[in-house]
Amino acid sequence: MDIDLLRSLATPNDKKILLCVVDGLGGLPDPETRRTELETASLPNLDHLAAESACGMTMPVDYGVTPGSGPGHLALFGYDPLKYEVGRGVLEALGIDFDLQPVDVAARGNLCTLDAEGRISDRRAGRIDTATMVGLCERLREIELPGVELIVEPVVDYRWVLILRGEGLDDHLSQTDPEREGVKPLPVRALTPAAQATADIVNRFVEQAQAKLADQPVANGVLLRGFAKHPDFPPLPETTQMRAGAFAVYPMYRGLAKLVGMTVAPGGGSQQSQLDAMRKRWDEFDFCFYHFKRADAAGEDGNFQAKVEALEEFDSLVPQLRDLGAAVMMVAGDHSTPSQLAAHSWHPVPFLLSSTYGASDSIEAFNEPACSGGSLGLFPAKEALSLAMANAGRLLKFGA
Amino acid sequence: MDIDLLRSLATPNDKKILLCVVDGLGGLPDPETRRTELETASLPNLDHLAAESACGMTMPVDYGVTPGSGPGHLALFGYDPLKYEVGRGVLEALGIDFDLQPVDVAARGNLCTLDAEGRISDRRAGRIDTATMVGLCERLREIELPGVELIVEPVVDYRWVLILRGEGLDDHLSQTDPEREGVKPLPVRALTPAAQATADIVNRFVEQAQAKLADQPVANGVLLRGFAKHPDFPPLPETTQMRAGAFAVYPMYRGLAKLVGMTVAPGGGSQQSQLDAMRKRWDEFDFCFYHFKRADAAGEDGNFQAKVEALEEFDSLVPQLRDLGAAVMMVAGDHSTPSQLAAHSWHPVPFLLSSTYGASDSIEAFNEPACSGGSLGLFPAKEALSLAMANAGRLLKFGA
Repeated sequence: MDIDLLRSLATPNDKKILLCVVDGLGGLPDPETRRTELETASLPNLDHLAAESACGMTMPVDYGVTPGSGPGHLALFGYDPLKYEVGRGVLEALGIDFDLQPVDVAARGNLCTLDAEGRISDRRAGRIDTATMVGLCERLREIELPGVELIVEPVVDYRWVLILRGEGLDDHLSQTDPEREGVKPLPVRALTPAAQATADIVNRFVEQAQAKLADQPVANGVLLRGFAKHPDFPPLPETTQMRAGAFAVYPMYRGLAKLVGMTVAPGGGSQQSQLDAMRKRWDEFDFCFYHFKRADAAGEDGNFQAKVEALEEFDSLVPQLRDLGAAVMMVAGDHSTPSQLAAHSWHPVPFLLSSTYGASDSIEAFNEPACSGGSLGLFPAKEALSLAMANAGRLLKFGA
Repeated sequence: MDIDLLRSLATPNDKKILLCVVDGLGGLPDPETRRTELETASLPNLDHLAAESACGMTMPVDYGVTPGSGPGHLALFGYDPLKYEVGRGVLEALGIDFDLQPVDVAARGNLCTLDAEGRISDRRAGRIDTATMVGLCERLREIELPGVELIVEPVVDYRWVLILRGEGLDDHLSQTDPEREGVKPLPVRALTPAAQATADIVNRFVEQAQAKLADQPVANGVLLRGFAKHPDFPPLPETTQMRAGAFAVYPMYRGLAKLVGMTVAPGGGSQQSQLDAMRKRWDEFDFCFYHFKRADAAGEDGNFQAKVEALEEFDSLVPQLRDLGAAVMMVAGDHSTPSQLAAHSWHPVPFLLSSTYGASDSIEAFNEPACSGGSLGLFPAKEALSLAMANAGRLLKFGA
């Protein structure tokens, strides 16, 4: 359902909802064994839970769409990821735990290599090491321009973030990165008249940055893309009437939770320590989001066996997650990350919802083929929260 | 498909369509037997019919949405229930067979208890008996105001309907019912400037009603909500080119059929007598809607066994329904009413469509898990009519 309908039907009660996101959960069969990572892994706790749950497959965004972490999570938080978009600059800033302000415009920066004619010969500056990049960011931090505060934050390798801070900035800007080599970086253009002043600032910054880096053998240029402001999403606690808490090791996922107004617990530590933190603060929240990262990382590495082990690690946490006693518990993925692809993918993702009023599936295992036969069928990930709220008795009847 | 597309494709022929709505059809497994009401009931005729039909599960409104009777039926009549909404006052008026005129504004009324300071101490006046309520409605009928005809109709218990009749009335009005106790009833506010005159009328009515009831020990106040006019929906006979007849014991369902322009047979009697009436008038219609109530009532009572028996009663009518000889016959529910919840619910509803051109399911029983595996899958209830019309050869090809 859309957010306006959700808001009109949401009603508070004392039933708790737990959303466990196993990042990159879904996979593809190993060509030899013809079994996916989930089918290969030994998952006694998840299999048992699936047998007592309504199961299905979520479509993260749309047919054939491979989601980034942003859309994948926003959908599971109940937001239509095609409507509620987060700019790349904002995601980069969230990913380093940067406290983005409403006036800020953020952009993703690359260090790059320019040839003698100023054409891009390497968009990633030979994937230079993080220490070198951090040193060069120090140089970029020396740049000052009137009427704006310039913030340069290193990320990793050749990647950094530019944040412009000041009143009246506008993020309707074209990117300088042509996304191919052999051509010069593009000047930033204002995409609306109101963005002209901001475009001028960025072009002056780029000019000075190039000058600061001119003596560098490899990282002698900068590319900027994904200019974006902090989006103004309707906050989940307001639309759902649930106090919402987020427990995640990595900053990107805490940042996404913060974007939708969740209370975000301190990050870092291990999956176990995040689970312990959630247990301690369980009474503070009606809705908890618990993020498990390792399955995605293993999938991205193309390491089938490591992904199997990551899934088994998550399985070992399931008894503790169940013991929290949520009225409704979901195990979901933001997207699939098949080891075979070593990347996110467009494939639907296994899903289970455990609740007194779930349904009567006869699913005996938590994996792709089993969940495809579940009572929830293939459904949009953005509907998972509505289903959970219905099962928790948190939605009023529609119409008399 | 939406109604404009339906209208553009609809073409008449001599094939008849029968829609049987088993109110509150779907359910949930009994915690002990793990079988739903449908799985528990002995349904030889439905099971046999399912084996020859295309089966699936309908989504009445949207994921997680629990529909009232209005949206549940409108969807099965082919109307998007999120687009075609019926106000509560109108539904209450339909529920007592009141002949609502286009100029009328209807509202749901409660008798309530007010304390010495005028605060609501019981929104339902101790759920007073119908006879007392009817007597007090007689008092409210004495109220007269210039420029409007005031109609007060009793419903049941503490419930009644107020109808304002007159030219220029406007239903954009806030409710007087604060929907909680310990506070005073709210004055009606005009939600648009054009509704100010109607708001003034209602506030004067409420003032006089309170005076008429001041001597009452319990039912000494009134609450009004759901101000609404008769909605102006595109009539089904026009959009589908089908003469449509409705056969229902209870007024609410006849009212909903009338809202979409069906010819409504006299109500009351038994399910059998309604079926007999439909048989007699079979030649008058291309599309017949037959409503079966008892399954919902048993579910609402939380009586698993009574719901099983209600389903078995419907099953016993199936041979007669088949003998009518419709080219396309559907068995559907407006929503689920699981005995376990003792209420309507958001769960998908079993559905079958019997037609020469249906499909080749290998479903052997008419129940939730079996229909979940049917060829129609999980689909929006508002598409059932399109499917039936296609199967009846009543839809032209789209595009060359």
